[in-house]
Amino acid sequence: MVHQHDESTANEVGTTTQLPSYGSSEEPRVYKVGCPPQKNFAREFRDTLRETFFHDNPLRQYKDQSGSAKFMMALQFLFPIFEWGRSYNLRKFKGDLIAGLTIASLCIPQDIGYSKLANLDAQYGLYSSFVPPLIYAAMGSSKDIAIGPVAVVSLLIGSLLQNEVDPVKNKEEYLRLAFTATFFAGITQAALGFLRLGFLIEFLSHAAIVGFMGGAAITIALQQLKYVLGIKSFTKKTDIISVMRSVWSSAHHGWNWQTIVIGITFLAFLLLAKYIGKKNRKFFWVPAIAPITSVILATLFVFITRADKQGVQIVNHITKGINPSSVHKIYFTGPFVAKGFKIGVISAMIGLTEAVAIGRTFAALKDYQLDGNKEMVALGTMNIAGSMTSCYIATGSFSRSAVNFMAGCQTPVSNIIMSAVVLLTLLVITPLFKYTPNAILGSIIISAVIGLVDYEAVILIWKVDKMDFIACMGAFFGVVFASVEIGLLIAVSISFAKILLQVTRPRTVLLGNLPGTTIYRNTDQYPEARHIPGVVIVRVDSAIYFSNSNYVRERTLRWLTEEEEKAKAEGQSKINFLIIEMSPVIDIDTSGIHALEDLYKNLKKRDIQLILANPGSIVMEKLLSSKLNEHIGSNNIFLTVADAVRFCTRKSMQEP
Amino acid sequence: MVHQHDESTANEVGTTTQLPSYGSSEEPRVYKVGCPPQKNFAREFRDTLRETFFHDNPLRQYKDQSGSAKFMMALQFLFPIFEWGRSYNLRKFKGDLIAGLTIASLCIPQDIGYSKLANLDAQYGLYSSFVPPLIYAAMGSSKDIAIGPVAVVSLLIGSLLQNEVDPVKNKEEYLRLAFTATFFAGITQAALGFLRLGFLIEFLSHAAIVGFMGGAAITIALQQLKYVLGIKSFTKKTDIISVMRSVWSSAHHGWNWQTIVIGITFLAFLLLAKYIGKKNRKFFWVPAIAPITSVILATLFVFITRADKQGVQIVNHITKGINPSSVHKIYFTGPFVAKGFKIGVISAMIGLTEAVAIGRTFAALKDYQLDGNKEMVALGTMNIAGSMTSCYIATGSFSRSAVNFMAGCQTPVSNIIMSAVVLLTLLVITPLFKYTPNAILGSIIISAVIGLVDYEAVILIWKVDKMDFIACMGAFFGVVFASVEIGLLIAVSISFAKILLQVTRPRTVLLGNLPGTTIYRNTDQYPEARHIPGVVIVRVDSAIYFSNSNYVRERTLRWLTEEEEKAKAEGQSKINFLIIEMSPVIDIDTSGIHALEDLYKNLKKRDIQLILANPGSIVMEKLLSSKLNEHIGSNNIFLTVADAVRFCTRKSMQEP
Repeated sequence: MVHQHDESTANEVGTTTQLPSYGSSEEPRVYKVGCPPQKNFAREFRDTLRETFFHDNPLRQYKDQSGSAKFMMALQFLFPIFEWGRSYNLRKFKGDLIAGLTIASLCIPQDIGYSKLANLDAQYGLYSSFVPPLIYAAMGSSKDIAIGPVAVVSLLIGSLLQNEVDPVKNKEEYLRLAFTATFFAGITQAALGFLRLGFLIEFLSHAAIVGFMGGAAITIALQQLKYVLGIKSFTKKTDIISVMRSVWSSAHHGWNWQTIVIGITFLAFLLLAKYIGKKNRKFFWVPAIAPITSVILATLFVFITRADKQGVQIVNHITKGINPSSVHKIYFTGPFVAKGFKIGVISAMIGLTEAVAIGRTFAALKDYQLDGNKEMVALGTMNIAGSMTSCYIATGSFSRSAVNFMAGCQTPVSNIIMSAVVLLTLLVITPLFKYTPNAILGSIIISAVIGLVDYEAVILIWKVDKMDFIACMGAFFGVVFASVEIGLLIAVSISFAKILLQVTRPRTVLLGNLPGTTIYRNTDQYPEARHIPGVVIVRVDSAIYFSNSNYVRERTLRWLTEEEEKAKAEGQSKINFLIIEMSPVIDIDTSGIHALEDLYKNLKKRDIQLILANPGSIVMEKLLSSKLNEHIGSNNIFLTVADAVRFCTRKSMQEP
Repeated sequence: MVHQHDESTANEVGTTTQLPSYGSSEEPRVYKVGCPPQKNFAREFRDTLRETFFHDNPLRQYKDQSGSAKFMMALQFLFPIFEWGRSYNLRKFKGDLIAGLTIASLCIPQDIGYSKLANLDAQYGLYSSFVPPLIYAAMGSSKDIAIGPVAVVSLLIGSLLQNEVDPVKNKEEYLRLAFTATFFAGITQAALGFLRLGFLIEFLSHAAIVGFMGGAAITIALQQLKYVLGIKSFTKKTDIISVMRSVWSSAHHGWNWQTIVIGITFLAFLLLAKYIGKKNRKFFWVPAIAPITSVILATLFVFITRADKQGVQIVNHITKGINPSSVHKIYFTGPFVAKGFKIGVISAMIGLTEAVAIGRTFAALKDYQLDGNKEMVALGTMNIAGSMTSCYIATGSFSRSAVNFMAGCQTPVSNIIMSAVVLLTLLVITPLFKYTPNAILGSIIISAVIGLVDYEAVILIWKVDKMDFIACMGAFFGVVFASVEIGLLIAVSISFAKILLQVTRPRTVLLGNLPGTTIYRNTDQYPEARHIPGVVIVRVDSAIYFSNSNYVRERTLRWLTEEEEKAKAEGQSKINFLIIEMSPVIDIDTSGIHALEDLYKNLKKRDIQLILANPGSIVMEKLLSSKLNEHIGSNNIFLTVADAVRFCTRKSMQEP
């Protein structure tokens, strides 16, 4: 007996003596394929649950702690402010103060502009930069994220809301639906985090997000043409064709040259500031304070020249004062609940995707870990609180977070500083915005969103993965030529299609021997890999599940047929063995077991022996429980392809 | 230089001389990780498309054929009757004749019963056993499948249709909607086949189907209590609670004892016949002809005793004559089109799942290949034709196909025979069914569907895969306690959830060295596998895509942290190397590349070297195009884990 595959060798495996091998010095020892003791159902189920929801093992640090220490740790877990607050000092505060003031100067003009994207009055943008950052500062674990309204979510919620309610005719209803959507967005985010379902946002692929964000940026920039060109009657649609038609049709009478001069001048100034900041990182503060400077300059200019009388549109009025309560405005009954819920869920997902991506980016730069689920609870709580204090959905802003990071923020205190400045603005300064031209807000938004068009990422995506590129372009063109929702739908669909494709059509490859070694590799990748006469070696590169079991069976048979034809054409010997390299097969379900069984029967009729190489522990367990290993024969299951090939060649030699 | 990883060794790889190795005799040659020439986009795209839609390479046989031969082959491809018809002979006809007569005797009573499940008059069941089998015989490629109405699809379409239209009050509309659904079911099936999207039906897992079918069988059997107990007023709901309440509430006055006697007697007879057929395969014809025998006996009995006057419900009237045209009855406009479409699509998928599963089962038994997509075109065409000739959805019947197979059918001619017998029945015999008691039809259906409760499969599923078991039970209880649609929804959802889980939480394992070999295996599966000091070896068992890239990165870091803590506790040396075994990583997308890059940066900060072992060709290509290989260093990418470990231990020794 050349091979040690009987059921009683389990103990032998642990011995350390060198077993005699088959006269060759290549493999000094022979091991049996291992099969760990069967786990019972409860254990297996628990392990799966843990790996799905608690793979980061968040409770690990609570082991061996006293009760009060556990309570303190849980408090610190929920409110990280108790953790970093204890070591807070003046040096850190200095960094946070500068960063906070910088992002405040950036956020005020942006907030006013973004609230217009959401079809809301200017003060709601400012409200959303006051309450949510305070709550995030207490609960969030990212040190660098800057909280507030962001362009893409504002555009998305504005676009979704105006499908349901007219923002001009039914202003009050529109506002109430916005708070309802914000409330449900918060509930969704907190629930996802609390139920540890945060991994759901991973289903939006990076490529799809790049495309979606780029498209949204173009759409947002196009919307600003209304303000920069001073057009009064503008389309409500967001697709590029409607917008350009709207722009051209008003070219003769609708454009206002004074507005254009202001808009273009300051846009050039902002872009120049951006360029300076990019060229030399020391000057990061130039693009950061350029917007507020522009606002001050432009407002003064309009106030002095009274350009508003020449048709230059101005902000005119921002309600003064702190956030009013809006609890009574949220719909909890009636037909708007379902609509608000739907809009909230969609906006919540996009908001989360953006915030978690930003959080992860900066956490990686500063080398700390971020718990995605905990972040979601923080973001959700802040939006729930926001919905009750007249805020609409806030999330992490990429541009402001980057400025925050570069300005040297140390802790979420920078958000508190920003929040305090916004409070002051609401209480004191809002009347001063009266003469701020809308054109300058448009210019600020254009210069802010331009960074979302990440053409370098697109080039990399094109180079690395063509399927990803299709997803990226699909999302981009969907947003630009149809609408934000369509773009999002395309992005999600292509992302899912890719996953489904992966699990339905896994790769199978033919293996060959690298001459002079016992290594077997893909013959496509290693053209020098040699074919073994009479043996076909196929590697299946995926779990064998119901979604691919038929494909795997049929594809394996096709490899065999092709090899048989080749062998026939070249006058080689008949193929007697089919070895399936199972290393990458991490799991097999009942459909997979059936497919293997069918394959075995089919091969048996053709007088070909099926041999399995290196099945993993889960696969071995299932082969045992389904008794398929008895059909195939336990001595036809080997630890390595090399062992299996040696067995085959030896057996071929014995036969006539 | 211990390791041969520089950019210029590409030519060396092809040489056959034995290269000197590092003084050990374990690996006589060292290979560089191969990277095939980059494919251009068009080629890559074409390859992906081909593997997705044409993995069976259906055009292979057309190569090197003349034009007329190609035409003939295409004709034979579409109408396999031209292929098998040419070698048809008397011997085959004898087999087909016997099989055809047997399935005809089985199908006539079943058809009458099943049309009741679909809330249709009895003749529509017979119509559906006349036209569709003829068309299938010309276009289908399965030799064993028996076509006609089946229990589960009848129940499904009946249940879906009566949600839209009342089958009693709006009889005509109901009928028209049924034809509309059948038409769209045919279109769906043909389109799926034609567009080679047949793999979509693979997304219903085997386990979910077992549960769904079992639940449907129970539901159907419960529905028959109406006939077997002779209850006049019966609930329209299909869930077990409503049905049992309906049965009990009519216990005192609604049951008819004469009906019960007839029903129970013949049910016992039918089950006995089934048992005999199962015990001895020679007597397969006993259960096959038992139903028609029962019908004849029961009809005679009622006719002689005039039991119908005692309250025994009888069939009473079946319209005589051949299928009338129903083209004008299909809705092509109006609100019913969308409803018919939806019902058609759902029924089409279930019909396809059943037919393809049956076809594959018998094809495997007789060892011929079945092209799923071609089958779908055949089934779709037959249902489109059916919808125009007063048929409702037909598909492959499991019970009749099994009888067909055992009766020795040779070709689809047995379907033609059956069809002819049904035609005769429609033309001549229908009046004779007048006195057939409904109870006997109920008994026949109960004995037919009882085989769909596949408890052996359930036991196997429980043993092999607990997740599958949950899917199976979910579908089963969904159908039994709620409704067919809910059960189906549960089945589909759990199937999808399983796929998503698989791609979001792939397995990562720690590898160790099997003492005395150069083999590295999972330390869980092989407890004897030894840990290498200073080195952590992690294997990632899946493609690294956007859906799992963050998980893979975090999980790998957690393995590292755990091993670091273990090493510290045991006073071992610091960990300096993290080897990722990439063999099972079949693909990586841009998110995966980012995750690897993040991992590399993170490790670098901790002074740990990232090493990759055996990346596949696609992964290598993407590492090159993203230039990540330059970051990691080409000489940190090895062909095998053994090579990588040798490099690490050597390097550790050189350092102080």
